[in-house]
Amino acid sequence: MRTVPAYAAPSATEPLVPTTIERRDVGPTDVLIAIRYAGVCHSDIHTVRGEWGQIAYPQVVGHEIVGEVVEVGADVSKHAVGDRVGVGCMVNSCRECENCEAGMENYCLEGNTQTYAARDRDGSITQGGYSTHIVVDEDFVLKVPEAIPYEAAAPLLCAGITTYSPLAHWNAGPGKRVAVVGLGGLGHMAVKIAAAMGAEVTVLSQTLSKRDDGLSFGASDYYATSDAATWAKLRNSFDLIINTVSAPIDLRKYFSLLALDGTFVSVGAPAEPLPVNVFTLFNNRRSFAGSTIGGIAETQEMLDFCAEHGIAPEIELISADQINDAYERVLSSDVRYRFVIDTETIAG
Amino acid sequence: MRTVPAYAAPSATEPLVPTTIERRDVGPTDVLIAIRYAGVCHSDIHTVRGEWGQIAYPQVVGHEIVGEVVEVGADVSKHAVGDRVGVGCMVNSCRECENCEAGMENYCLEGNTQTYAARDRDGSITQGGYSTHIVVDEDFVLKVPEAIPYEAAAPLLCAGITTYSPLAHWNAGPGKRVAVVGLGGLGHMAVKIAAAMGAEVTVLSQTLSKRDDGLSFGASDYYATSDAATWAKLRNSFDLIINTVSAPIDLRKYFSLLALDGTFVSVGAPAEPLPVNVFTLFNNRRSFAGSTIGGIAETQEMLDFCAEHGIAPEIELISADQINDAYERVLSSDVRYRFVIDTETIAG
Repeated sequence: MRTVPAYAAPSATEPLVPTTIERRDVGPTDVLIAIRYAGVCHSDIHTVRGEWGQIAYPQVVGHEIVGEVVEVGADVSKHAVGDRVGVGCMVNSCRECENCEAGMENYCLEGNTQTYAARDRDGSITQGGYSTHIVVDEDFVLKVPEAIPYEAAAPLLCAGITTYSPLAHWNAGPGKRVAVVGLGGLGHMAVKIAAAMGAEVTVLSQTLSKRDDGLSFGASDYYATSDAATWAKLRNSFDLIINTVSAPIDLRKYFSLLALDGTFVSVGAPAEPLPVNVFTLFNNRRSFAGSTIGGIAETQEMLDFCAEHGIAPEIELISADQINDAYERVLSSDVRYRFVIDTETIAG
Repeated sequence: MRTVPAYAAPSATEPLVPTTIERRDVGPTDVLIAIRYAGVCHSDIHTVRGEWGQIAYPQVVGHEIVGEVVEVGADVSKHAVGDRVGVGCMVNSCRECENCEAGMENYCLEGNTQTYAARDRDGSITQGGYSTHIVVDEDFVLKVPEAIPYEAAAPLLCAGITTYSPLAHWNAGPGKRVAVVGLGGLGHMAVKIAAAMGAEVTVLSQTLSKRDDGLSFGASDYYATSDAATWAKLRNSFDLIINTVSAPIDLRKYFSLLALDGTFVSVGAPAEPLPVNVFTLFNNRRSFAGSTIGGIAETQEMLDFCAEHGIAPEIELISADQINDAYERVLSSDVRYRFVIDTETIAG
């Protein structure tokens, strides 16, 4: 065991504070990573505040992690000391179920082991990336291409793969009309990736306030959902809609924008159920799907795709003592487009 | 115009009664069909009772129609006098939208012209198949292969295509695990067609009362949804679930039965919205879709498929004066599996 600095939530209602946590010894297949940057995801906030269910405290969150390998276990073959690597939303899975066998560890039938606030295989509770070091099984460690700016790479491990996976699965590409709902941390990556895939991309946002950004990320169109004319104009228009918004939305209105065989994919979701009128799905043979992160091989594919296409998140680098302010700004949508913690500031 | 005998609903609350209706003159592209058999669909009941919205009365329903061509318009090339033909749920569409161009007239963006209770292109209200004759544009008339027993062919025009279309679209076939929810008029066709396509078919019904039938139709398994053990046993089991039940159901429980990339397709639907928890769709990247009848070319494909595979609905032939009793029996699920009216009894 080693003791490392971290920022943790002491309870659901208190701000995050500097502390130390234990990391396990480097096992035969483990990699010890000196974390350099950690992204701030909305899920971090939901989790530490107990909004997605009760958790144990103190809890360190953060599942957009990049850093350098500083030690490897005896049997590690995929990574070497000095490698620039990443860790995303999961650090293990059962590896035996049909989904794991298919390379979709994110859909592990036993439930994958999430990077934080989850029961690890050794019985401990996983602690995330707002920390200086982490120990992760080599199979759940990604290679971060040098072509991606170091500090901007972190958000790819959640926001990047969460949007890449459905875009790839539902064949975003030339000739496909893709709409992205919400231009936040996930949404702005969805736009960049879908555009790089060759799709025709439209942003659907509450207002036009981020329009210039959206177009610069690769969108060809940008509409305000607060404008009633948007709904009439865009009816039956899209092959794929990626919904990055977690707040409850009127699904019927969004479904009405889908063309024949169009799919509305939620990667964000409110905790409470939403009403669905099946008749709206009858029109155009529409589908409503969910998608969550991606498999390990697919995450590597996404990183390589972003490197090849020169895609990276727009970030605002913060020091660890700014985390609590950053949370408030995330909640008020005052971030363009992802906060990334410089973890050197955690060590103090 | 010609006056023909029919059975019509005088109002939402009265039984159907014998009457006469007008059919338009045979236009250049029209076919006059002497109806021989008309299936009784649950939709007929919903419609005449005003449960799907207000309609004008008197109204003749019936959209599972087979008969002989007795007259053709000057420009008709697809059908000839004496042909055995069928008419399903629609009798026209805009023919110009992208969906019509794609051969999916059922998803016509202007709305297809339904066989009954719809505003026809000439402004009149369409009148359905509980009648001795009907005039339909040749493009919306299907050829009914001789290999299909005449009286059993009618239900294929709605129950057959409604289940064939999603089974074909979502690739039911060898290696695919398909569940059919409900073993009624639609469900029993879904089982027969999916089995003929080579899929592994499971019936999910409230009780095991129709188990022997289900297995004889080609299902390999049959489970009672009233048995709690069913839900645990079948978790993550199906690639495709075809829901033929129109009553509200607990979608979350059914979604939990879908395997990776599984799709739950509703072909039946309650009028009111159902709550959907998106987190249930996240698991296994599940999809929830709607599907309604099929295109004209696909309907012909279905008829040919049924002829080739020796598939036909199980029917109970009734005379026109039994229609009101039949409605009550449909509502109490006391039909195995489709009532078909011998329309010779309408002429009286």
